[in-house]
Amino acid sequence: MREVTAFAPATVANVSCGFDILGFAIDSLGDKVKVKLTEGSALKVVEIQGDEGKLPFESEKNTCSVAIQAMLDQMDLHVGMEISLYKGLPLGSGMGSSAASAAAALVAANEVLGKPFSKEDLVPFAMEAERIACGAAHADNVAPSILGGFVLIRGYDPLDVIKLPVPDGLHCTLLHPHLELKTSDSRSVLKQQISLKDATMQSGNIAGLIAGLYKSDFPLIGRSLKDVIAEPSRALLIPGFYELREAIKNVGALGSGISGSGPTIFILSSNESIATKAGEVSRKVFDEIGLGVDVYVSKVNVKGAFIL
Amino acid sequence: MREVTAFAPATVANVSCGFDILGFAIDSLGDKVKVKLTEGSALKVVEIQGDEGKLPFESEKNTCSVAIQAMLDQMDLHVGMEISLYKGLPLGSGMGSSAASAAAALVAANEVLGKPFSKEDLVPFAMEAERIACGAAHADNVAPSILGGFVLIRGYDPLDVIKLPVPDGLHCTLLHPHLELKTSDSRSVLKQQISLKDATMQSGNIAGLIAGLYKSDFPLIGRSLKDVIAEPSRALLIPGFYELREAIKNVGALGSGISGSGPTIFILSSNESIATKAGEVSRKVFDEIGLGVDVYVSKVNVKGAFIL
Repeated sequence: MREVTAFAPATVANVSCGFDILGFAIDSLGDKVKVKLTEGSALKVVEIQGDEGKLPFESEKNTCSVAIQAMLDQMDLHVGMEISLYKGLPLGSGMGSSAASAAAALVAANEVLGKPFSKEDLVPFAMEAERIACGAAHADNVAPSILGGFVLIRGYDPLDVIKLPVPDGLHCTLLHPHLELKTSDSRSVLKQQISLKDATMQSGNIAGLIAGLYKSDFPLIGRSLKDVIAEPSRALLIPGFYELREAIKNVGALGSGISGSGPTIFILSSNESIATKAGEVSRKVFDEIGLGVDVYVSKVNVKGAFIL
Repeated sequence: MREVTAFAPATVANVSCGFDILGFAIDSLGDKVKVKLTEGSALKVVEIQGDEGKLPFESEKNTCSVAIQAMLDQMDLHVGMEISLYKGLPLGSGMGSSAASAAAALVAANEVLGKPFSKEDLVPFAMEAERIACGAAHADNVAPSILGGFVLIRGYDPLDVIKLPVPDGLHCTLLHPHLELKTSDSRSVLKQQISLKDATMQSGNIAGLIAGLYKSDFPLIGRSLKDVIAEPSRALLIPGFYELREAIKNVGALGSGISGSGPTIFILSSNESIATKAGEVSRKVFDEIGLGVDVYVSKVNVKGAFIL
């Protein structure tokens, strides 16, 4: 029977002033999913690698099968599939791990079925997987993982997904410090009421960031990378956060923020050389406080999930 | 002695989801200011027309002279000027009346002095006039009145003014209902604390609006024209506000909102024909509730203040 393997990239959501509405995809880091058509009408997760035994095989709990099932339900189609998941992303890191699995699964399954859906169409199915994995059907990781580039989620009622341009040269440094940060803790520190002044500042900055992406205006992107809503609370959970911000500004990076709900930190830079230097100085900051860190330097991915 | 007359357009600030950060300029409606170099070192407001005797002649209170004085102070220059103000805009209407006077005064005075400043440089001087006129040195009227087009005020610390593109065909209908609305009342109804959910929706919409302007995507502009922060409180002060919104959507307009702190309402449309129809159906709404209204249909002005 026909089988297809797809790759879907890691993603950064909650891009600073883009709290809950903006995400982008990373090159090379990501998950792979193999989907094989079988007899019968059951989805079976038959193999999971790279998860240290933490992910569920039950098809109603695994993000790959949940996403594919949502697609099949929409088509009212009953087919069997064997699903193999090869994790390239650490779990619970803030790099969109569950989103990448769902995205790769959908792109592979869509190909196996002869592409009944466009990539844009796949986003709502992946959101169902996020509902299982994170408790909320967010699109700010799954949409960029599927579509690539910077993606704005304007709103959810109805879902409004807008692909934004990626300036040439824009690079991301991802820092994954070796500390555990529960999403529930990251959520619980968020203030549910904010001042009109802070809301207005956040609006000004997200507007500036969108304009900066369209204009390829790196200084404007840098000036706009400020989050006055989530970051002030969440940064306290990540040792070294503000020291690192100083250090990366000194080597010319545009700015930094918390990726998703952390603990991964993203840094944006106008070229690879600065992105690499930003990674080096960040590593020193974490060394000094005795915290291990994985550093990845990457272009912003513009093509999203693809068939291998 | 040399004399110059300049025109500066009306402006719409608080553009729906762009509360406090976004403004745009209107064609043809506006104020004119004549500036004449004189002996001595005093600024004198010698003539004011079209204000029904409401505006002050004292140079420390008139927005024209206050703006010019801020410019002269920056240059450490002591010259005399006679200033004549010809109001084309109603006072306290929410169309940026004080801003247009200051903008026209600055552009004329800058020309008289041989253009020591760029247009962008003039914005902070006009903000000093807003401080006198409105109690706060806002830039969201003065910047578009001087520069034209859509202007984003990303932030104030330091001032960061970004000119945005204007899609071809975009038209504005301005409705000035004959009712008095004090800025202090409009301000006092604003909630000073807002929910995280509303702040996130506002961010999504302003991001969508900026993207829509860059993409010339009229449906996206329409979907983004939502204000969940200021409008729900302020709309209650303007009879017919929501009936009008229904009526203009039915004729194909993109959306509507309160201009500045009201009572003027702006409507955006993708062409002049729809903008005109939107004005007609709006007039009917106000007729039915027995409220007089002035209706203006105009392109979005892209050149800002200019020498006559």
